[in-house]
Amino acid sequence: MAQAIAAARLGAGLTYRNPLVGAVIVKNDRVLAVGHHVGFGHAHAEVDAYQHVTHPEDVIGSTMYVTLEPCSHYGKTPPCAHQLVRWGVKEVYVAQQDPNPLVGGKGIAYLREHGVQIHVGLMETVARQLNRAYNFYYEYQRPLVTVKVAQSLDGKLSLNDGKRTYLTDMVANADVDHLRATQQAILIGSQTAIDDDPRLLVKERVAYPPVRVLLDRRNRVSHTSRLWQTNEAPLWHFVTGKESTKGIEDKDTRRTFKTSEWSIDKVIQTLSDQGVQSVLVEGGAHIQDAFLRVGLVDQLIIYQVPEIFGGRSLASFASRADSMRMRFTPVTIEKCGNATKMAFIRPSLAADWGLD
Amino acid sequence: MAQAIAAARLGAGLTYRNPLVGAVIVKNDRVLAVGHHVGFGHAHAEVDAYQHVTHPEDVIGSTMYVTLEPCSHYGKTPPCAHQLVRWGVKEVYVAQQDPNPLVGGKGIAYLREHGVQIHVGLMETVARQLNRAYNFYYEYQRPLVTVKVAQSLDGKLSLNDGKRTYLTDMVANADVDHLRATQQAILIGSQTAIDDDPRLLVKERVAYPPVRVLLDRRNRVSHTSRLWQTNEAPLWHFVTGKESTKGIEDKDTRRTFKTSEWSIDKVIQTLSDQGVQSVLVEGGAHIQDAFLRVGLVDQLIIYQVPEIFGGRSLASFASRADSMRMRFTPVTIEKCGNATKMAFIRPSLAADWGLD
Repeated sequence: MAQAIAAARLGAGLTYRNPLVGAVIVKNDRVLAVGHHVGFGHAHAEVDAYQHVTHPEDVIGSTMYVTLEPCSHYGKTPPCAHQLVRWGVKEVYVAQQDPNPLVGGKGIAYLREHGVQIHVGLMETVARQLNRAYNFYYEYQRPLVTVKVAQSLDGKLSLNDGKRTYLTDMVANADVDHLRATQQAILIGSQTAIDDDPRLLVKERVAYPPVRVLLDRRNRVSHTSRLWQTNEAPLWHFVTGKESTKGIEDKDTRRTFKTSEWSIDKVIQTLSDQGVQSVLVEGGAHIQDAFLRVGLVDQLIIYQVPEIFGGRSLASFASRADSMRMRFTPVTIEKCGNATKMAFIRPSLAADWGLD
Repeated sequence: MAQAIAAARLGAGLTYRNPLVGAVIVKNDRVLAVGHHVGFGHAHAEVDAYQHVTHPEDVIGSTMYVTLEPCSHYGKTPPCAHQLVRWGVKEVYVAQQDPNPLVGGKGIAYLREHGVQIHVGLMETVARQLNRAYNFYYEYQRPLVTVKVAQSLDGKLSLNDGKRTYLTDMVANADVDHLRATQQAILIGSQTAIDDDPRLLVKERVAYPPVRVLLDRRNRVSHTSRLWQTNEAPLWHFVTGKESTKGIEDKDTRRTFKTSEWSIDKVIQTLSDQGVQSVLVEGGAHIQDAFLRVGLVDQLIIYQVPEIFGGRSLASFASRADSMRMRFTPVTIEKCGNATKMAFIRPSLAADWGLD
């Protein structure tokens, strides 16, 4: 199973909304083949492994180790559970049952009904870490929300001189770029769009660039902004409007979402309805605080640079609301360019993430 | 010399304004004795080592390794340089010349004039770290200023509910107590004295508890405060007044410092005049920012707890002044109870601290 988990990771960045999955076919204590889900719309791990077997007839009576329950529905590829039976696989070890209700338990049931010996739960905690956002999305029915903060030692996001404040260096920026590349959506508020005029594009080559979500209730962001002028990634524009619209396609990759009032909850629900499994919230302070306030900070990643801004510089998570106290569980801390990178999660996720 | 440096550390917490010093007497490749400065007003390292020699006549023709230049002036003890000559020491290795102008170079000159072979600079960088504040005080003619901050992940010092916010747990508090115990003074502003009503006493048993400095320009702090009501450590009260007074002793350990206007520079100058070699600035936000603004943050120690306060909670180093950008050099980062403890220094100190 450890080999199947390692194989699964080869699909990182390519499977989009599909999970990373690895599979190993074993017979008489010999590995016949290793496979992984190679990309969205491409072969599933089980099929990929089967295709790597030298003599297909060897698979008859074999054992398969697979990190996620084989699928049982016709999607972009025929259901794996059916194939396994057809190939004559005798025994299957599954690390994790699929949280997707389309599959959940049905693949396992199909295999059992067709006389395959099946064992569920081997190395489950490790295997689950392959697909944190995927699992979260199906288990909590909403995207995993990561808030990213780049701040000074005194927790400040920017000076108060009206210009964009650059905090992190090239090395840390590359790390942020990679963080973005692993997300299905990146969200900013209108003030950040106006002040910083970012593109929110990912430099890393990715098969599916994250959707850029602009929360711009009062429709303040200029169409000459760089966000608007670039179309290398989708731009979803959330504005307040009388009639409700869900994703009118303005032009190419641009869609407008309208409703009479956008709360943070409603924005996340809309992204959820669109199938978005992970969102990176990039700021500014008011947006950070708004997510905190409704309990929608699942993961918090701070890049802290060794400077003090002092005075009336803008603090992270600052707003006019009452202060509150939200505890997080530390996950990692590491040097990252000129910054110290610290990752935290909501304490209730510690068990899911294998950290308790 | 490494052995002398290790010996020097045995005096930690006992030498007060005197430096930590270690000495080793060697003859024919054998260690005759090891000594250290055992405490303020007690034997210097050289004398302590001599007292540990079994046969004093063995010292004739010996070599001494001493971490700091032997003294040449009559203070609380007779000058060591004179003693070394009298004992017949033939050769002396000194790690660091004494930065104290009363001694600086004179001990070395005395030994050289009296026919002792002398070598200066062996393991100097390491030896200098024994006495960072002592060296700083004589080299920069003012105390080493350490600003200590306990804050949330978003850089907040306290909630805005008017009550004291406790951030750090027992383990981190014990570390803060030890930090205080290594300082000659602890400084707070009147607002912190009023809001938190701290005692600023050190729980760790120390020979010389740090002076508690209360910067209370408008004389706002009540005499019923815990700071006022405790006398286990000196309390120096800095208030604005028409006549200037330097340390009128009110009662036991309490002194009042008055002048027409107290700037941060003037406060530090006054502490310097009083011989204070190290000051720990404990807050609040305005005081932190005031020290930052005049460039008087030599060392910065942050205890950051894994919580977010958000909203209008009070940010560290916050004031109404313009924001600025002050860079620091990271020194250490470690887990400390519920906090991450991070130490930084002014970049120009990196060489002095052996960090470049």
